Amino acid sequence: MEWVGDALRKVREKRPLVHNITNYVVMNETANALLALGASPVMAHALEEVGEMVSIADSLVINIGTLSPPWIASMEKAVKAASELGKPVVLDPVGAGATKLRTSTAMKLLEMGDISVIRGNFGEISALLGEHGKTRGVDSAEYSLESASQLAERAAGEFGTVVAVTGPVDFVSDGKRTYVVENGHELLGNVTGTGCMATAITGAFLAVEEPLKATVSALVTFEVAAELASEAKYPGTFHVKLYDYLYAIGPETVVRMAKVRGV
Amino acid sequence: MEWVGDALRKVREKRPLVHNITNYVVMNETANALLALGASPVMAHALEEVGEMVSIADSLVINIGTLSPPWIASMEKAVKAASELGKPVVLDPVGAGATKLRTSTAMKLLEMGDISVIRGNFGEISALLGEHGKTRGVDSAEYSLESASQLAERAAGEFGTVVAVTGPVDFVSDGKRTYVVENGHELLGNVTGTGCMATAITGAFLAVEEPLKATVSALVTFEVAAELASEAKYPGTFHVKLYDYLYAIGPETVVRMAKVRGV
Amino acid sequence: MEWVGDALRKVREKRPLVHNITNYVVMNETANALLALGASPVMAHALEEVGEMVSIADSLVINIGTLSPPWIASMEKAVKAASELGKPVVLDPVGAGATKLRTSTAMKLLEMGDISVIRGNFGEISALLGEHGKTRGVDSAEYSLESASQLAERAAGEFGTVVAVTGPVDFVSDGKRTYVVENGHELLGNVTGTGCMATAITGAFLAVEEPLKATVSALVTFEVAAELASEAKYPGTFHVKLYDYLYAIGPETVVRMAKVRGV
Repeated sequence: MEWVGDALRKVREKRPLVHNITNYVVMNETANALLALGASPVMAHALEEVGEMVSIADSLVINIGTLSPPWIASMEKAVKAASELGKPVVLDPVGAGATKLRTSTAMKLLEMGDISVIRGNFGEISALLGEHGKTRGVDSAEYSLESASQLAERAAGEFGTVVAVTGPVDFVSDGKRTYVVENGHELLGNVTGTGCMATAITGAFLAVEEPLKATVSALVTFEVAAELASEAKYPGTFHVKLYDYLYAIGPETVVRMAKVRGV
Repeated sequence: MEWVGDALRKVREKRPLVHNITNYVVMNETANALLALGASPVMAHALEEVGEMVSIADSLVINIGTLSPPWIASMEKAVKAASELGKPVVLDPVGAGATKLRTSTAMKLLEMGDISVIRGNFGEISALLGEHGKTRGVDSAEYSLESASQLAERAAGEFGTVVAVTGPVDFVSDGKRTYVVENGHELLGNVTGTGCMATAITGAFLAVEEPLKATVSALVTFEVAAELASEAKYPGTFHVKLYDYLYAIGPETVVRMAKVRGV
Repeated sequence: MEWVGDALRKVREKRPLVHNITNYVVMNETANALLALGASPVMAHALEEVGEMVSIADSLVINIGTLSPPWIASMEKAVKAASELGKPVVLDPVGAGATKLRTSTAMKLLEMGDISVIRGNFGEISALLGEHGKTRGVDSAEYSLESASQLAERAAGEFGTVVAVTGPVDFVSDGKRTYVVENGHELLGNVTGTGCMATAITGAFLAVEEPLKATVSALVTFEVAAELASEAKYPGTFHVKLYDYLYAIGPETVVRMAKVRGV
């Protein structure tokens, strides 16, 4: 998978401006992850400025982790603006399925603009697909590697986007082709916002590569950095080294350590 | 105090979902502290979803450190929902006494629902008690170990909750019994949000233990982790190691290092 | 430049209370930078309490990095209150020039109160000056050390404040005298909010020194800490050590390592 390394190289050359409308918990972390990687983050959420900011950005990251009505309005406006301008958008439906507000907001954003990629865990993507496919009697399958793979493929087909169902093993599908990513480390589960960081980094790769390869490349890069950072055995130091390795890691290392295959 | 270790064991077994409505400054830190400890944090503050989130959570943490009217409304709704559902609530009255908005918000939250625990410093708890007991001529006593102990006891009696007055020495009282906790480290004062982290962790222990023991167990666990983290002599590295030790620390170590006694 | 060390000494003696109305991304970082340095941060943004908070604070930091209308109203109220009470104010016009909302908000804040210091990068200060001097045909000069120096001087004269144009080399001017600060490290560009931390720290120094010397002292102290922290070669660990050195650094070290000269 040489293209994973090529995508990282392109991110560092282009240094894309990634506009994030994200949750309060992870703003600092996602900005630092993007900077460490070599991209340029900007955060702006006011209805009065999101349109302008999207127009100067290379991609848009929408994360619904701490929603409220004014932020939803801005997310909608930003997604519309990005669609009109042809800027790629990645959506992180944090907590979809946990509350109606989150599920319905994610669904509305999917309906109102061109979302390039959705990245979520099994429960979140299931919730979106369940909501969308209700009339077709979609079953809420229990988690298994097979069901996660099928979920990614089915959701991608249903929404017409790339879908990444992440977990111990990640499945990334555009509805036709599906990639499996088996990198990562369990300490990622002991630091908040690591899923959100993966989404933000996907935003950076979307500025330089088509959505399917961009998403796979982002996940592999992030998770290889996590594997290297796991030389720290505890979550505080692991978290710090995650930024260190996002900065220090080279395309060759990513390619060498990548555990990616087509299904 | 074997029960302190037992409480920590129970937190790690149950992995409680702790709903935080907290201030912007510490959201990331409190989420990371809860994850490192072995609990599961969720943040949600929209009026439209706090009720649902409380219903799936095991406990609720309210922290008034960066208030505004929409957040106050959501805090009130969440506290009411938690009371109705019998979910434990811990309140951190950050800055009570500094501005009227903070003092009055904390008082209102205390009046409108069942708060299990209040954790604050001497000034904050004094402000609440002063406000509440005004007509009874409560003196604003100067800080001393004796006055802090009395404050915890009196506030607990007055509000019908457990009250923790934290500082170099902590006093935790339910109005009848009072515990003294003498763990901790002065570097905690050079990192923002360490009091808020102690409150958030109290939220996790409240999901597995009755309020008095839960609060003592939370403070001891957090402060023993801080003592171990102080092998780093400076606040940046100390902060990182605090998460490391919240993750790595075992019940036996906590019990062995605990400096707890009844008054 | 012995006065740089003296200013740091005074910050640690006074332990000023610095009121921050700042952006969501850097709240935690700026609070931790202030605490590490030896100052005392407080964050409050509700219209209902900013006046009271300004009245008990020693200085005010305004940072427009994640604006929205309710925050703008509070910033305006806080700046007015600080002006009336004679409290020093530092303004960080994050993203001025990128969107109209940011440029116009910064301009309005400059018009409605006594701002002591503006700290921004070349593009941000150019945007403010361009807006202000439009009718006078100010050219948008390309960046060079000479143009940055001239920009600081001209903006200071135009706004009647101290202006710091920071970058690889910093220029700090009150319109008559200009200082050049050549400390710092390139890793500052790989961590989010380092400019915002420099601004927050300027707020602490403003509580103990006149604006020109306060700003130079703040930048030198912060950037010398960054030079020491660069023993870590990667941004995650560098970021952590930045707090360590802000805490550990002594006035003598700052004076010895300072690269400051008058123009």
